[in-house]
Amino acid sequence: MRRTAMGFAVIAFMFVLFAAVVLAQQAKMPAPDTLPDGPRIFDSSRRGPSGRLIPGPQFRVVPMKGLSHPYALAFLPDGNVLITERAGRIRIVRNGVLDPTPIAGMPAIPNRNLQGLNDIALHPRFVENQWVYFTYYREKPGDKEAAAVVLARGRFDGKAVTEIRDIFVTDTMVAGASAARFVFGRDGKIYLAIGVPLPNNGRAGLATMSDAQDPSSHFGKILRLNDDGSVPLDNPFAGRAGYKRELYALGIRNAMAIIVHPVTGEIWENENGPQGGDEINIIRGGRNYGWPTVSFGRSYTGDLTGASGPALDQYTAPGMEPPWLFWAPSIGLSGMTFYTGDQFPEWKGSIFVGGLVGEQLQRVVLNANGLPIRRDPLLAELKQRIREVRQGPDGLLYLLTDEDAGALLRIEPVGPATAAGH
Amino acid sequence: MRRTAMGFAVIAFMFVLFAAVVLAQQAKMPAPDTLPDGPRIFDSSRRGPSGRLIPGPQFRVVPMKGLSHPYALAFLPDGNVLITERAGRIRIVRNGVLDPTPIAGMPAIPNRNLQGLNDIALHPRFVENQWVYFTYYREKPGDKEAAAVVLARGRFDGKAVTEIRDIFVTDTMVAGASAARFVFGRDGKIYLAIGVPLPNNGRAGLATMSDAQDPSSHFGKILRLNDDGSVPLDNPFAGRAGYKRELYALGIRNAMAIIVHPVTGEIWENENGPQGGDEINIIRGGRNYGWPTVSFGRSYTGDLTGASGPALDQYTAPGMEPPWLFWAPSIGLSGMTFYTGDQFPEWKGSIFVGGLVGEQLQRVVLNANGLPIRRDPLLAELKQRIREVRQGPDGLLYLLTDEDAGALLRIEPVGPATAAGH
Repeated sequence: MRRTAMGFAVIAFMFVLFAAVVLAQQAKMPAPDTLPDGPRIFDSSRRGPSGRLIPGPQFRVVPMKGLSHPYALAFLPDGNVLITERAGRIRIVRNGVLDPTPIAGMPAIPNRNLQGLNDIALHPRFVENQWVYFTYYREKPGDKEAAAVVLARGRFDGKAVTEIRDIFVTDTMVAGASAARFVFGRDGKIYLAIGVPLPNNGRAGLATMSDAQDPSSHFGKILRLNDDGSVPLDNPFAGRAGYKRELYALGIRNAMAIIVHPVTGEIWENENGPQGGDEINIIRGGRNYGWPTVSFGRSYTGDLTGASGPALDQYTAPGMEPPWLFWAPSIGLSGMTFYTGDQFPEWKGSIFVGGLVGEQLQRVVLNANGLPIRRDPLLAELKQRIREVRQGPDGLLYLLTDEDAGALLRIEPVGPATAAGH
Repeated sequence: MRRTAMGFAVIAFMFVLFAAVVLAQQAKMPAPDTLPDGPRIFDSSRRGPSGRLIPGPQFRVVPMKGLSHPYALAFLPDGNVLITERAGRIRIVRNGVLDPTPIAGMPAIPNRNLQGLNDIALHPRFVENQWVYFTYYREKPGDKEAAAVVLARGRFDGKAVTEIRDIFVTDTMVAGASAARFVFGRDGKIYLAIGVPLPNNGRAGLATMSDAQDPSSHFGKILRLNDDGSVPLDNPFAGRAGYKRELYALGIRNAMAIIVHPVTGEIWENENGPQGGDEINIIRGGRNYGWPTVSFGRSYTGDLTGASGPALDQYTAPGMEPPWLFWAPSIGLSGMTFYTGDQFPEWKGSIFVGGLVGEQLQRVVLNANGLPIRRDPLLAELKQRIREVRQGPDGLLYLLTDEDAGALLRIEPVGPATAAGH
């Protein structure tokens, strides 16, 4: 009997182990294709052009699931995090936990054609004034395809957004995929990038690809605004006939990130090309960044006539700024940060960018002169569309995944080599 | 007792299952990082720029291990395969089995600085004359760093190579990584691409990066030779002062593939850029392909002065051919084939290229006009440096991996959808 009892105990034990292993394996099997539920360790070492190993730190990816197509995030002074979802919600991570209830007070924002709620940022003096800013696409009444791009602001008291007001609205509209990202410059002005649609999404009276070269349109531009949405008097094209007063720079396709360089204070922007031609640009007032006249990309259709994108071999042109760096083919550049933290000493001074179609985080390694010397793909194993890349106040990296089952990913050091950074 | 016996039987059963699962899991765990020993199935479906699924066929990768840094392969008329290894060996796959004994008769070829034995091809009338051609780096006596590039031929009787003769030898030498690939054109001539070293591998009296623009040097060129190594009288620079008579095209960095277009008969070549600037070129007689004057890449050091690569924003120049397609950053383009087989109907008309530093096979999808519309990375999960890409006479794809534990990979269809192709 004792033997039988022990037999059963062993059976039970084995069964539990077996079940655990099967479950673990089932959880693991799709791992190359889906985001794991728990933390996972990666090695950033890679092999260089000749095959020799270039060592890099290990890092741990800690996912926080429960988001739908998150787009942008803002770190609050108390360490909490605001996250926009394309479908019009602002979510909050409070004390490390994602609140299932969205922030109250937001208007209804339709989520169509990759439009919806986009970027979010706090006023530089948020502690004093509680202003939070966001961009979204406001549907034309009675026309579900056309939308104006809106920069709005409201007050955030930790629970709800109130006093929301649309402080800038484009005077024409757009159909189809576009993006609206913004940043506060060191001069306190808002630099707002407004994208143009793909050529096949043009409609009479709406913005088209060629708006990016049209100074009388807000689309395909970097705009410069005061913090109340009014137009600064010292804008580069102020008073110039045929130019919108808000214009700061022209020839932008679809900016996916616009940030301030942590040392120089320059405005850095990145954007997607169609089939190649993703760019990082340093945005200077009054300059023209070339889309769709010049690009290192081609039309999605392969067309090189110039009708649906740059013509064959139109890479540069007089009076148009070449990118600081470009990609071909496209990785769907999206999200960007200069890493300045202490958590990963080896990564200090590198640029990190996200890839949508490229499903990766990419580290752009710079030399002592700040020029790129290498680009290391990271996290390709996860097969996640990376939408946003930010450095947290804790010196860790935070990513958002552009997925139906989207997530916030925290990237933190592993082991003794980097634990000193904590 | 019966219960106890059953208990033990169940324990034993569970234990076997448990062990099998653990072993299976252990076997599976390193799979994303190393080449599996047996066949493995992959799905070529991927997500496009907006995240929508682009379906693609499944395929099976069948590895044949036991090669060390295989470089190139040639299909024999009897279905067997000759494979060069960088260390100077020619191996043979006979009736689907890799012979552990290399082909006899080869000279000693040192394997240094990524040099060694490179390319191999059969004479177009091999069945009649048994000529096999190969390229290798022949060390300067007493100087282990300097080597001449040699095109040799010998007769292959199925067992050994005999009557080996060096039919073309560069009259200067090179130190450091370089490559020498060749193809027989439809005109029966040999198109031989000879690479230039990296800037830091230059030495007095040896080829340097700038040889690619020097018409009196064989390096950084496409040469055109008769099948006995002599110079055709109708070469484009024939009789021109200061030009080597062998020259067909200039401005080549390091060609990693040179092939004949299956329809047009044009010579297509690809090459690596340093940090970006990988190119596919259509090689035309008398043309200049720009290296190191122009490129879509940058120096590995980030230097943009022009001293160690193209200067800043020198992408194109009058009289220099832009590439047919380029990559930035570099994937270490290597190996190339136009897929014309029936085994993968969906892939017909695509170009397949290998990636060394990019550790992938890449499919370049063309539109009806033969222009590129998309580049799909494949096999990145294997983390293998792909050196060679060829279509076999059976319509399957064959790859070589540039690894210490290198392999021949056969890519074949899976399941009923493509089984009809067999």
